[in-house]
Amino acid sequence: MSAVRPLDREDNEIEAIVARLGRKARAAQGHLALASTEEKRAALAAMAARVRSETERILAANATDLAAMTSGDAMRDRATLDAGRLDAMAGAIETVAALADPVGRILAAWDRPNGLFIERVATPLGVIGVIYESRPNVTADASSLCLMSGNAVILRSGSETLGTATAIVDALRAGLADAGMPQDLVQLVPVKDRAAVGAMLAGADGGIDVIVPRGGRTLVERVEAEAKVPVFAHLEGLCHVFVHAEADRDMAVAVTLNAKMRRPGICGAAETLLVDAAVARSHLPAIAEALAAAGCTLRGDARARALAPMEEATAKDFATEYLAPILSVAVVDGLDGALAHIARYSSGHTESIITADEAAATRFLTEVDSAIVMHNASTQFADGGEFGMGAEIGIATGRMHARGPVGVEQLTTFKYRVHGKGQTRP
Amino acid sequence: MSAVRPLDREDNEIEAIVARLGRKARAAQGHLALASTEEKRAALAAMAARVRSETERILAANATDLAAMTSGDAMRDRATLDAGRLDAMAGAIETVAALADPVGRILAAWDRPNGLFIERVATPLGVIGVIYESRPNVTADASSLCLMSGNAVILRSGSETLGTATAIVDALRAGLADAGMPQDLVQLVPVKDRAAVGAMLAGADGGIDVIVPRGGRTLVERVEAEAKVPVFAHLEGLCHVFVHAEADRDMAVAVTLNAKMRRPGICGAAETLLVDAAVARSHLPAIAEALAAAGCTLRGDARARALAPMEEATAKDFATEYLAPILSVAVVDGLDGALAHIARYSSGHTESIITADEAAATRFLTEVDSAIVMHNASTQFADGGEFGMGAEIGIATGRMHARGPVGVEQLTTFKYRVHGKGQTRP
Repeated sequence: MSAVRPLDREDNEIEAIVARLGRKARAAQGHLALASTEEKRAALAAMAARVRSETERILAANATDLAAMTSGDAMRDRATLDAGRLDAMAGAIETVAALADPVGRILAAWDRPNGLFIERVATPLGVIGVIYESRPNVTADASSLCLMSGNAVILRSGSETLGTATAIVDALRAGLADAGMPQDLVQLVPVKDRAAVGAMLAGADGGIDVIVPRGGRTLVERVEAEAKVPVFAHLEGLCHVFVHAEADRDMAVAVTLNAKMRRPGICGAAETLLVDAAVARSHLPAIAEALAAAGCTLRGDARARALAPMEEATAKDFATEYLAPILSVAVVDGLDGALAHIARYSSGHTESIITADEAAATRFLTEVDSAIVMHNASTQFADGGEFGMGAEIGIATGRMHARGPVGVEQLTTFKYRVHGKGQTRP
Repeated sequence: MSAVRPLDREDNEIEAIVARLGRKARAAQGHLALASTEEKRAALAAMAARVRSETERILAANATDLAAMTSGDAMRDRATLDAGRLDAMAGAIETVAALADPVGRILAAWDRPNGLFIERVATPLGVIGVIYESRPNVTADASSLCLMSGNAVILRSGSETLGTATAIVDALRAGLADAGMPQDLVQLVPVKDRAAVGAMLAGADGGIDVIVPRGGRTLVERVEAEAKVPVFAHLEGLCHVFVHAEADRDMAVAVTLNAKMRRPGICGAAETLLVDAAVARSHLPAIAEALAAAGCTLRGDARARALAPMEEATAKDFATEYLAPILSVAVVDGLDGALAHIARYSSGHTESIITADEAAATRFLTEVDSAIVMHNASTQFADGGEFGMGAEIGIATGRMHARGPVGVEQLTTFKYRVHGKGQTRP
């Protein structure tokens, strides 16, 4: 018994800490929900100013984190801040402040025959829980997107960068205070214990409305498996480019090269190339050559390997999100073959068809059931910024509420306002 | 061991049955997602025609259910069909068929500086699981709403009316076949075991996207506690009417009387009356008299009891959804007092303010965080039909995706279509 009790108490303590964050967030959000656009913009400006004015303090905290870090170079690089990165972080906050206010938008309005006038109006979601790993910029990006959309945020930073996150959150909260806004609109889980993640996924005792995980597959898998509240996330981006029989060859080369190699490690990077058998002989060698010249490894099925030099692809390859300069290649029989392959392997993120045939494009855009479907465009455009949303807190492949890039509009819900003159229901 | 194994196997069998329904629903839905509005309307017309042509068979099944029923009169009344109710059920299907098709709506469209044209377009949610109790009309209502919105439905009927539900589903499926549509768009869980509900709440092995419970508090509580997939539901409708200092007395009497007594048992019925202290003396006696004359029991706080005859209300009363001709009454200090009471006790369903003061109304509509907020109108208008949605599958008080009445539009999600000319991302 004596060995168990301290652990139980500790978990309870952490649950209590997270629940308290939730209550404070809820109270602060009630205030923010009524703030004007100008008040929110002033708060964001003050937050950006504080990030700039506290650069030295934040960089010192970052140096301490880095000195204690045991992770490898990739993690260390993502975690490292300098004056330029901090200035960009402040600039990103200012970009969000310039966005149109998503709260209060009239989404629909109509009159009823009995004289009632009904409006559907956008309101904040409430409290957003953001669980992330080592990227310090998530601290500021998520906070500013939540604030502009009228939501409070509870941040859970990776433990190796908790000091950096604390310094950034201190700056953001100082900015909120400067602007006369409740500081508890932005809160950071102050403990490293993993039980805190569990408490957030359980909804923080009613204090969190939705969870956004920002990080690798292990994190997202845990979040999706354990969360008792809704989650905006994508587990993977297994994106396809389909080169149709009517594809222009140069366009097919350029788009495929960009879709895979511009940044092979982002979720919108293509992982599989499908080539219509009708043009495989004419198009595939040129595409393969361009990719190989750019340093991409190709893994093809038998029909693809007969047309260009590449490694042998297994069925597992077509189910793999490489996030690396590797591309699976299959030759398929027409649009139907491509649709069948995509239906089997797609993660529902983004797929693109290259074709000059409008009818084929329309069928592809209609029948592929992914968050984003494209015609004659690189899958790397699957991004909130590229969509014109200004910024995104993530990309969601779920079907509920938010699908695709999650920007400030997607961080709102709505309510109905009914205006009457004393009507009673017969 | 021997006592446990058969039970395990049985649960596994039921899980397998539900998972199979999910796979069949998913396949059928893929077909429906591509159907034209005309094809969906033809299918709904055929389903309505089959309900009418198979009236005798359905009534016979209903008679068998009723003969075996052990439940009380209220349940028996809800479960009882006759030719008139069946004709109304068919008519309700035809009403849904006449609705605007929610699939394919362009929700937004914009050009990007790089020439990309982006559309957000409504698509079906997928497969809806509906868990209900004894009302046979839910079988047809839910099926038609799901079909019109491009979704497949898996129905779980209350066990005492499974025979009736089976006969109705047989008719609906015959109608689907008549129209050349996949019958598995409408499926009924064929077993009475409660483990089937658990299997649905777990998502039917990926075969169900969202659960809609239709029934009493016990059912909704279980669904909200156990569901691993999103739920569209309201646990209760603890709705408030607030009579503000600037309320017209006759309007306050008429709206309160209607909000409570038109049908005291629906979720949009008012459960609490709040009266501004400034007009309590002038307005409350008239309201109380009208309610008492209509057979309503009043339970008031001390200030209310000082002005009109009523029972004593406890704190528990203000937290109680009576669904009966009983009304809690409190005198509050101005708009702030009403907002504080509502923030504490509301279930987030529907609240209404009665006032001639536009500024007070605007503050109420802005600050009350419920799915539906009203000005000078009866809370009994909280209904998809009254909102002009044609019909509703339920009312949701959650914040995600659907809030308020859930009609065919709320049963859709969306995807992004991106139209390019070969653009690559710099």
